Amino acid sequence: MLSQDDNELLTRVGPGTAMGELFRRFWLPAVLSEEVKERDSVPVRLRILCEDLLAFRDSAGRVGVVEAYCAHRGAPLFFGRNEDCGVRCAYHGWKFDVDGQCVDVPNDARVKDNPRVRAALGITAYPTHEAGGVVWVYMGPKERMPPRPDFEWTRVPESQSHASRWLQNSNWLQGAEGEIDSSHISFLHQELDPNDSALGVTGADLAGADGAPLITVKDTEYGFSSIARRRRGDNYFWRVSQWLAPMFSLIPRAPAQTFNGSGGRAWVPIDDTHTTTFAYSFRIDGPLSADERALIAGGAHFPPRTKRMVVQLGQGQPIDAFVPEANIGNDYLIDRQMQKTVNFTGIWGVNQQDRSVQEGMRPAPTGPRGIVDRSREHLMGSDIAIVTARRKLLAMARDLQKGIEPIAASSAGRATARAISSLSSTSSADDYLTEYAKPIENEET
Amino acid sequence: MLSQDDNELLTRVGPGTAMGELFRRFWLPAVLSEEVKERDSVPVRLRILCEDLLAFRDSAGRVGVVEAYCAHRGAPLFFGRNEDCGVRCAYHGWKFDVDGQCVDVPNDARVKDNPRVRAALGITAYPTHEAGGVVWVYMGPKERMPPRPDFEWTRVPESQSHASRWLQNSNWLQGAEGEIDSSHISFLHQELDPNDSALGVTGADLAGADGAPLITVKDTEYGFSSIARRRRGDNYFWRVSQWLAPMFSLIPRAPAQTFNGSGGRAWVPIDDTHTTTFAYSFRIDGPLSADERALIAGGAHFPPRTKRMVVQLGQGQPIDAFVPEANIGNDYLIDRQMQKTVNFTGIWGVNQQDRSVQEGMRPAPTGPRGIVDRSREHLMGSDIAIVTARRKLLAMARDLQKGIEPIAASSAGRATARAISSLSSTSSADDYLTEYAKPIENEET
Amino acid sequence: MLSQDDNELLTRVGPGTAMGELFRRFWLPAVLSEEVKERDSVPVRLRILCEDLLAFRDSAGRVGVVEAYCAHRGAPLFFGRNEDCGVRCAYHGWKFDVDGQCVDVPNDARVKDNPRVRAALGITAYPTHEAGGVVWVYMGPKERMPPRPDFEWTRVPESQSHASRWLQNSNWLQGAEGEIDSSHISFLHQELDPNDSALGVTGADLAGADGAPLITVKDTEYGFSSIARRRRGDNYFWRVSQWLAPMFSLIPRAPAQTFNGSGGRAWVPIDDTHTTTFAYSFRIDGPLSADERALIAGGAHFPPRTKRMVVQLGQGQPIDAFVPEANIGNDYLIDRQMQKTVNFTGIWGVNQQDRSVQEGMRPAPTGPRGIVDRSREHLMGSDIAIVTARRKLLAMARDLQKGIEPIAASSAGRATARAISSLSSTSSADDYLTEYAKPIENEET
Repeated sequence: MLSQDDNELLTRVGPGTAMGELFRRFWLPAVLSEEVKERDSVPVRLRILCEDLLAFRDSAGRVGVVEAYCAHRGAPLFFGRNEDCGVRCAYHGWKFDVDGQCVDVPNDARVKDNPRVRAALGITAYPTHEAGGVVWVYMGPKERMPPRPDFEWTRVPESQSHASRWLQNSNWLQGAEGEIDSSHISFLHQELDPNDSALGVTGADLAGADGAPLITVKDTEYGFSSIARRRRGDNYFWRVSQWLAPMFSLIPRAPAQTFNGSGGRAWVPIDDTHTTTFAYSFRIDGPLSADERALIAGGAHFPPRTKRMVVQLGQGQPIDAFVPEANIGNDYLIDRQMQKTVNFTGIWGVNQQDRSVQEGMRPAPTGPRGIVDRSREHLMGSDIAIVTARRKLLAMARDLQKGIEPIAASSAGRATARAISSLSSTSSADDYLTEYAKPIENEET
Repeated sequence: MLSQDDNELLTRVGPGTAMGELFRRFWLPAVLSEEVKERDSVPVRLRILCEDLLAFRDSAGRVGVVEAYCAHRGAPLFFGRNEDCGVRCAYHGWKFDVDGQCVDVPNDARVKDNPRVRAALGITAYPTHEAGGVVWVYMGPKERMPPRPDFEWTRVPESQSHASRWLQNSNWLQGAEGEIDSSHISFLHQELDPNDSALGVTGADLAGADGAPLITVKDTEYGFSSIARRRRGDNYFWRVSQWLAPMFSLIPRAPAQTFNGSGGRAWVPIDDTHTTTFAYSFRIDGPLSADERALIAGGAHFPPRTKRMVVQLGQGQPIDAFVPEANIGNDYLIDRQMQKTVNFTGIWGVNQQDRSVQEGMRPAPTGPRGIVDRSREHLMGSDIAIVTARRKLLAMARDLQKGIEPIAASSAGRATARAISSLSSTSSADDYLTEYAKPIENEET
Repeated sequence: MLSQDDNELLTRVGPGTAMGELFRRFWLPAVLSEEVKERDSVPVRLRILCEDLLAFRDSAGRVGVVEAYCAHRGAPLFFGRNEDCGVRCAYHGWKFDVDGQCVDVPNDARVKDNPRVRAALGITAYPTHEAGGVVWVYMGPKERMPPRPDFEWTRVPESQSHASRWLQNSNWLQGAEGEIDSSHISFLHQELDPNDSALGVTGADLAGADGAPLITVKDTEYGFSSIARRRRGDNYFWRVSQWLAPMFSLIPRAPAQTFNGSGGRAWVPIDDTHTTTFAYSFRIDGPLSADERALIAGGAHFPPRTKRMVVQLGQGQPIDAFVPEANIGNDYLIDRQMQKTVNFTGIWGVNQQDRSVQEGMRPAPTGPRGIVDRSREHLMGSDIAIVTARRKLLAMARDLQKGIEPIAASSAGRATARAISSLSSTSSADDYLTEYAKPIENEET
């Protein structure tokens, strides 16, 4: 449970809000590199932290993430021409490069050849970086820019990773909380027939073993590790997930999962009630196999099956989004017969299952859809990781208001943070973490 | 005409509002029994008086109407599993019975076997009752619960009655006002060719006789009787309608109507601008015939032709609604040629005709669509029943604010209130009411 | 750039606003005459300046523009019967004539034959006038009514003009500003291949000559003339556009344009964020040819291709609108390949091009979509006509608040104002205007 004030603080992300400013201290995923694959190609409309932006690759291959409107009279740059190292507004031909500089004002004789005047006509542009198949953006003050994003999944070669993104119709936090909520796996993602893993989901294994895991949280510089212990016969089944502030996860694969790699999600706020979920799947020991890529493409895990389209959310520009085929408008294609015999939800696909419970959570009486009313929750011991994440976020946001920068944004530990799951006879989280610190071979149990 | 303050008072129905509290002193129709016909079947999402609710029948056949969200973290219970006498949340498996009690918390070892902790984890559940093919709910304070709903139409055997519900896109009151507005029948529902009653509507009869009826209102404990007198040759055509607080009607059949029974509507607020209309048609002298059931199913009267679907209204959960095929989005399928020669509106079906004028009434300059601006009305003598209903509702709502409970909610007279219409030579309402008090045979003229 | 206060003042048009009152001093286009062509035909729902209205032609051929709701209880008159010189409400049969007088109250015996009571039951009706294929309405105080609309295009015979209207999803001003923005033609409407004028647009001509025209503004009683001079070899290419307060334009044809006439637009606010654009095309020297009418009907200029349908905007009644087929929901059917080689935007049609940049302009951080944030603009010398229009509008609106009526509304000069474009060797706007004052033959260069 959270006070309404704290809930507001955690969920509001516009310019000037405490949480919005905290997000602006981190490098954030913006779009997929493949969306702006070609030089001078079609720009992508996006919104991050309530700001309307445009992503494009210029003629030299550089990617820009700039404000979505022309400095002249506010026309949408999306309809402009991406040519000769800049986007030229369709209305009067003003041109801006990836750094937001105004490089041409062709409709005004006195300005077009006057660089000094043009210098005052730039638009906001944010530093970008490409890694892990993702275009990253840093939207904070230049002098506070942390090192470029560096995670295990951004370090591996392209052949070993896969990135995707899609639209979630909720505030970022109620999506992100699902990442560090180990116990839900035993229910939401449970298969009823343990021999049937048609969906590739074998949460049944976990649930059959123990639906009430003991969760231990260990602080780290970049966030914390969440360690779930489940009984499994004479052994324990351990899962270590990583939470990297403010909203990155690293999740271990399920034990019998056909996918042999690891993965996680990042929850990038579009605005207060919509989120772009980024997913990354990767192997550290070699290329993703064709089967693994096919599994990812199938939509049973992450990403879900989506359709890329223009959507209008709120009052700003329309944005280019990957909209899941199964969504709240079609009850996530729930099959009540399937729910009786095949899996716990009757909903196909892990992300669909997640969204079915996350997108429709109870709003506050006067609040908007998409922000759950955390003042009416009843949290248990099994929610300790969620409680920890909120406590850390609140502390970081309040610290920042006092001028204390978040060290998590610069933590070198992010590059080596790793999720793991395995059986072990030890009953101690500390002992297990020692074991977990062993070399990578042990992880592939 | 009403002051804006009085209009606000009558139309706002959320928790804590004067009218909302008055509604919470009455048993209200919630869903149709047939929607939750089978045990452990799919729950139904509904909203009443701005509260998101879930209706379901459990394994023992009991019907629950409970709050729509899990006590744990607010996940929507609709996606849960209705099994073994309770709904189990899909997110973490918490389970709630029809009384809202939390009967299982399987994801937390310390809580799951601790009934004392679980006792604090219940969700709101409202008392229910089934009668007349309808699941009723009482949403007020337990100690104020009135006797269970008891009307003539809930007393007759199932074979003698039919219940239905559908979505009206307006505040409850501007729908309910149509019930007690005798004069509109002579216009809105008029057939131009008196020999053509293809629609089964014979308002032409009424209009031909006298479009300006004299209305008399007689107070009753449960509300009032509205008595309309129309000239018809040397006789008078009398219609007695019943208004039962806060929004139940009993309406006599039209004289030449093929349907031989009686009926009425109840207007249950979803929120301030949407309403679920419940209709009941019944005979007191024997089963509805196949022809009568076919007439009801045809959609020419009540209910209209509808399609059951999920709709998103406002900020809460999506709800399961019966959406009329003819609606404001398609101009109620108006046929302007038909309007010239066949009937007064060019719109097919009595309820379509009602909704065409009620759903699009003038909103206040800064008010929402769906609430008519009653400060700009010009009421006449023919509106005396409407004026009476408002006056009574205002008095009851204000009395309740002072602690005076509405006796109408407990009135035994509701069980015998009856609508009637017939020809009579008397010109006196009092004399006619004496005649009306005769046994039932007289009613079937 | 404009202060936020000034932007609010210019863009808000409801009753009681400064700009709304200014608009109410002018005759405004309401609907096309052809929409209410036949006597007693289907009424048209419209909204002007945030007021819900109904237009209809009565049995005597008179056109009424009246408030959209019945005086009795606010039912929508659209569903009523247009018959015997008045609209009869479908609910209770009350009837109103084109002057808003209540001429029948058939459902109340005491009122229906009492003209004195009925006199108090009228609805708002605004004076109308038909000219130029348009039904005009005056919504201001009766004693301030200016002379009836009198423009060159309303004076010519029907055979010489064409009028149309459609929906623009933006505030009126950002549409109207496009009219007096000569330099955008060189970009937004530019064809890349000057030999290909498949679209009938030859902005390439202009751009090729000179994309940075020198703009001169000359005050007139009715508004101002905007004079754009572009170099073209040893000559100058001159274009004189007229701005007639508050939002009428007269635009010269492009030099090589196949259409041999002239035209302009009027921007009539529906509400603060939607506009009905009226376009008029006309010749003063003779009938429009079949080819010219086909060109207009084709949708490449004005109007765009549209579909007439019912749309729901905001909180009032649905309205009957001509909705463009290419709109923000389908990215104006932009073809990025076409943008590389055929024309500057990749969007087909002049109005589509205009709307693509105007409808999606940057809203204020907390403002609604459809009103551009003018506090973040950077205006140049090329924007002098826009600056002038705003200055004049602000002055007129503020004057009116002080009781000074706008003389532009009554200016006789509006009848002779004319747009022109031609080559000339003079470099002086004054000299060119002298030349422009010559008889009409010179205009057809």
